[in-house]
Amino acid sequence: MAVGEFDLIRRYFQHPLAQAGARAGVRLGNGDDCALLQPAPGQVLAVSTDMLVQGRHFFPDVAPRALGHKALAVNLSDLAAMGARPLAFTLALALPQIDEAWVQEFATGLLELADAHGCALVGGDTCAGPLNLCLTVFGELPPEQALRRSAAQPGDELYVSGHLGQARLALEALRGRWPLPAAALQRCRQRLEWPQPRVALGLALRGQAHAAIDLSDGLLADLGHVLRASGVAAQMDVPALLASAAVGPELRALALLEPALALTCLLAGGDDYELLFTAPVAARAAVERAGQEAGVALSRIGRIVAMADAGPPCRLVDAQGRPYTLPPGVELAGFDHFA
Amino acid sequence: MAVGEFDLIRRYFQHPLAQAGARAGVRLGNGDDCALLQPAPGQVLAVSTDMLVQGRHFFPDVAPRALGHKALAVNLSDLAAMGARPLAFTLALALPQIDEAWVQEFATGLLELADAHGCALVGGDTCAGPLNLCLTVFGELPPEQALRRSAAQPGDELYVSGHLGQARLALEALRGRWPLPAAALQRCRQRLEWPQPRVALGLALRGQAHAAIDLSDGLLADLGHVLRASGVAAQMDVPALLASAAVGPELRALALLEPALALTCLLAGGDDYELLFTAPVAARAAVERAGQEAGVALSRIGRIVAMADAGPPCRLVDAQGRPYTLPPGVELAGFDHFA
Repeated sequence: MAVGEFDLIRRYFQHPLAQAGARAGVRLGNGDDCALLQPAPGQVLAVSTDMLVQGRHFFPDVAPRALGHKALAVNLSDLAAMGARPLAFTLALALPQIDEAWVQEFATGLLELADAHGCALVGGDTCAGPLNLCLTVFGELPPEQALRRSAAQPGDELYVSGHLGQARLALEALRGRWPLPAAALQRCRQRLEWPQPRVALGLALRGQAHAAIDLSDGLLADLGHVLRASGVAAQMDVPALLASAAVGPELRALALLEPALALTCLLAGGDDYELLFTAPVAARAAVERAGQEAGVALSRIGRIVAMADAGPPCRLVDAQGRPYTLPPGVELAGFDHFA
Repeated sequence: MAVGEFDLIRRYFQHPLAQAGARAGVRLGNGDDCALLQPAPGQVLAVSTDMLVQGRHFFPDVAPRALGHKALAVNLSDLAAMGARPLAFTLALALPQIDEAWVQEFATGLLELADAHGCALVGGDTCAGPLNLCLTVFGELPPEQALRRSAAQPGDELYVSGHLGQARLALEALRGRWPLPAAALQRCRQRLEWPQPRVALGLALRGQAHAAIDLSDGLLADLGHVLRASGVAAQMDVPALLASAAVGPELRALALLEPALALTCLLAGGDDYELLFTAPVAARAAVERAGQEAGVALSRIGRIVAMADAGPPCRLVDAQGRPYTLPPGVELAGFDHFA
């Protein structure tokens, strides 16, 4: 039986506000010309949008449930990087044809993550076309506590959450550029396909961190965005990074066998969806508590310095502050969709 | 010279808040993980999203400037149908390749309309992929004045703004199904490619109209959305519609030559981006003033009645309330992207 656009929405994308644990800020959900949102008193609405395209952001044979999860996860990651609490989202979806089993799996992955974050699906659009997902997410936060890219200050220390580089390592393995044993590949692929947005960490860092960004383009590229926005420079302590919790077991093993590839994955991996943030030295203990509250390891990997007249905004250094020379073969190009 | 994703955004999609006439509600625009929006005290944020795909929503050879205009216009039309005042929007854009001349024209059409409505571009995403545009718009309104689809009441009168059916007639002419003289085709094509969202009318109808929707799927299909959401039925007075200002000169001529095609365009045309709304009889004078304020003709074309146990929710009637029989050949299928 042919299923139409409106049936599709009714069957798979109804998201009762109660099920989503929707907060009072959702004044009107699905089904009208517009949804109505109202941030809590004293708070503002944080808004972010991301588009995912087949072949660029996911493989054609990706499991639809994972795709539904990831489509929302990468958007929630932007809210986390701002310190915002998720409130709601919209979904626009172009589908080459209606495959109900596919849509059902996609919706399940999407709405399970939405429910876990009390984030209500409040509107959207469905049309026929090459597979394309565009989500816009909304969160709430007190504006004076927003973790802005432009707020890094000289003297701040530089942190990352979680493990870096696993998603990139999975990609390299799937492309046949590096052999990984099955269990390791499975763990890395999990990071690539089921990223967990660091929402709790972003909330815990409110009032403690200065600047934050989520790692989607790669550590150095995203650090570059923060430095440019803040008008500062950074010294990244590469040995500290390599010794830190940011390097999980797969990358630690890789570093022994093929250091250049390990550094490529760590410094320019992309798709990490961890948080990179800066905080003053005085906030060290509070930052540590924030990591514990959020249940994620934090690594201190460098510091923010005043912008120099010459030289790159991010200098790679060793523990003594001397220039650190990368081994040949490290690929540092920041991710650019048209490069 | 190769232009990358970040250059593209910097060159063509920077939209200084001052240029956009952005209001205080835009607390933070482009360039961070999230934009920050805050509705005025006592107001809420109205949110709507629309995706436009080549071949479905526009021809491959559409003028990029018109496409930029239309992409925002159809989203502003959703705000208008809610009675919301435009505040900001985000743009996600998948492009097959970077054609700078194309992007510049697209951005010009987009931002000219944005400026005209004080609607700031506050964020977005750009990636490589089959051409796809996804916009999310934000407006402000007092929630108790929202023109909801579900608010139609028995006894209300049914109105439409402007002329209907011209966009569909342009499509039929461009597809070779109906010959139109050059000047008439030009006027109809203008309606198809440069729709003008009825934002001023939506604002003027606050507190007067009960329910409203914008006409994108076609008059009967969109009326059906209102009737279902409100749990009511309607009687549409077809002779009154045919005699009304809703029929512009091109459709009036067509009705004399090919009445079935004229009724198809009027009743199921799609892409009109006029407002369909209901208002109580007591508000007649106020509705008339709202149309004058907004500079658009309004036509009274029927009334809302209680839902009957049987029969279609919308009955076509004549001036005496007797069933109106459409001539053979009228195509009334509501627009469905997968039908």
